[in-house]
Amino acid sequence: MLPDKLRSLVYLLSRLPGVGEKTAQRFALHFASERDELAAQLGAALTELKQSIGICPLCSNLTDRSAGEDTLCPICRDPRRNPRVLCVVTRVQDLIAIESSGAMRGRYFVLGRLLSPLDGVGPEDLPISELRQLIADQNVEELILATPPSVDGEATALLLAQELRHSGARFTRIASGVPHGGDLEFADRITLGRAIDGRRGVED
Amino acid sequence: MLPDKLRSLVYLLSRLPGVGEKTAQRFALHFASERDELAAQLGAALTELKQSIGICPLCSNLTDRSAGEDTLCPICRDPRRNPRVLCVVTRVQDLIAIESSGAMRGRYFVLGRLLSPLDGVGPEDLPISELRQLIADQNVEELILATPPSVDGEATALLLAQELRHSGARFTRIASGVPHGGDLEFADRITLGRAIDGRRGVED
Repeated sequence: MLPDKLRSLVYLLSRLPGVGEKTAQRFALHFASERDELAAQLGAALTELKQSIGICPLCSNLTDRSAGEDTLCPICRDPRRNPRVLCVVTRVQDLIAIESSGAMRGRYFVLGRLLSPLDGVGPEDLPISELRQLIADQNVEELILATPPSVDGEATALLLAQELRHSGARFTRIASGVPHGGDLEFADRITLGRAIDGRRGVED
Repeated sequence: MLPDKLRSLVYLLSRLPGVGEKTAQRFALHFASERDELAAQLGAALTELKQSIGICPLCSNLTDRSAGEDTLCPICRDPRRNPRVLCVVTRVQDLIAIESSGAMRGRYFVLGRLLSPLDGVGPEDLPISELRQLIADQNVEELILATPPSVDGEATALLLAQELRHSGARFTRIASGVPHGGDLEFADRITLGRAIDGRRGVED
């Protein structure tokens, strides 16, 4: 039913995370039928994206490449951030989420992926030697393992703690428990078990 | 937190229907971090979209402009479609939905919008004269008013029936009732009222 160009647009859009064919078709028809220049503007932005976005050589965060090829990301450049505390996250999305909490004043390291035997991701696929180097270069004292509290996330945190045990850093793990505003009645058993196990003195 | 180019990409993506800032950021980070060429491919597809997609001069359906400036859409070109039955829909999306049912063997006319006094859309904003011309040119015998069963959709259908009453065509309205597989217990009162009002003899 759709013109060829629109069909290939639907196919490309359906490769976005969480977008199925119906949503992709909705997007494509929106691009085709609206009067303003959204399609052209977005087309230009996407075309030049890869030239303008770089990867921070220290932490693998995204960075603005227009300032130069090997520019550090804003966090690694910021002298007020404590380089002795390093927070290991899985993806840039997780880094942004933790930053928006304002609770982290150290630096980050983006792993890029989790250990996942089912998907064929083994220890050799993780950037462990880069992380070891960074710990040595920055004299890291505390490594916060902020991988998600899932099976793969826990396994990755354990692996990192084991592989880097001679690095001299102390390892911590983000707390897992009932979320803020959450109802105990509707929390699952594992979350409640962790909330009890991870209890803290009221004076803390 | 995000590089400038990525922030402007998030802004553009958040203008898609049903996409908020969180989803737009998820899309943008997907474009930025994945290895393959999705951003470049989608960028090229969007940049050339408006040049390659045209509007059918008869029915306002989308059409492939590469075949020539004033090409008719595949439906208006198809000699097997009955030009005497014309189905009036609001958007190209609705045309596609009806086509996928396989129940319509006539042609279409895409209105583009519904009467909507709250949004300032009055009778003069609807392509009524174009529709009148098409009815005359194709000797349309039946005009199926397939605007949605909403307040604006019903008002538009009524307006069209009134404005075109001297055109010689018979007007029909798509049926409204309990959807296939739907549960009467959970249908709203208006839908159930319409299902009763629109009842048909069992032999039909």
